[in-house]
Amino acid sequence: MLEQKIKESIREIKDFPKTGIFFKDITPILKNPVLVNEIADELVKQMSALKLDAIACMESRGFWFGMLMAQRLNIPFIPIRKLGKLPYDTLSYTYELEYGKATMEIHSDALKKGWNVLVHDDLLATGGTACAAAELIKMQGGVVAGFSFVVELSFLSGSERLEKYSSNIQSLVSY
Amino acid sequence: MLEQKIKESIREIKDFPKTGIFFKDITPILKNPVLVNEIADELVKQMSALKLDAIACMESRGFWFGMLMAQRLNIPFIPIRKLGKLPYDTLSYTYELEYGKATMEIHSDALKKGWNVLVHDDLLATGGTACAAAELIKMQGGVVAGFSFVVELSFLSGSERLEKYSSNIQSLVSY
Repeated sequence: MLEQKIKESIREIKDFPKTGIFFKDITPILKNPVLVNEIADELVKQMSALKLDAIACMESRGFWFGMLMAQRLNIPFIPIRKLGKLPYDTLSYTYELEYGKATMEIHSDALKKGWNVLVHDDLLATGGTACAAAELIKMQGGVVAGFSFVVELSFLSGSERLEKYSSNIQSLVSY
Repeated sequence: MLEQKIKESIREIKDFPKTGIFFKDITPILKNPVLVNEIADELVKQMSALKLDAIACMESRGFWFGMLMAQRLNIPFIPIRKLGKLPYDTLSYTYELEYGKATMEIHSDALKKGWNVLVHDDLLATGGTACAAAELIKMQGGVVAGFSFVVELSFLSGSERLEKYSSNIQSLVSY
């Protein structure tokens, strides 16, 4: 039921950001505050068995539901951002893309050793960014408690890359 | 009291993003979910006299409290993003920076004519980005109902530039 409502609110954009990609645009969801509320509730419910100390969310679309989840869970929100965006001392992790490289950063004081940290983003594709987030959490002595996504592109097998960090990988809808 | 708590959680970063700027880093606030909740409550309370149809929030830091405000107000959340980030048809507005130009975009179906739209960002500096958001709202026939910020750098007089759109300009702390 919720899955159906989400899919009806996702818009497919051909050739964005580059030719050959059908981008899943979740911004129509944001126009519907009742649906946003239901999604945030469900994202949190999927993780209710975990004892979480913080949630790490990826710039920028991961910020949308990530802040709502952090508030519902009453835990710190940790922004994971692209190179050069975080102002304080950072740790960084560089990973390969299809063409070129990308670097993600976390503030060096973002979490404490031993914290159970949930990774959240709006969408799981190949899993490169989520892996980078997991590495950044581990570099600070944190434990990757799981991964939470609104949408999963299961045909890209991103979850297989994440399993070495945590087998707790959840999404609300998959394609 | 709240103002004091916010100021204690804001970190000043010298020379970020460029030499001569003392950047106000609000990410330490995000580590404190109780304070985040209080801030979101107060941001909404400041606008309680308005009948709002939507809230437009600026990428990326404006997304943090913007989503919480949209949920409390039970209204649509409109992302305003940098050039090339929004996947669907967009309207764009280019404005002058100290050196060079910047372009902000809004989805062409983001709002309906006559809607009262609140503009939110984490910080008001010179007001260039907030003006761009106001212009994008007006281009779609929307009404700029007001401006909401967590932090205002009042010595930069950004609010003076915003007054032609709405005299309702609020922030929780100012420097």
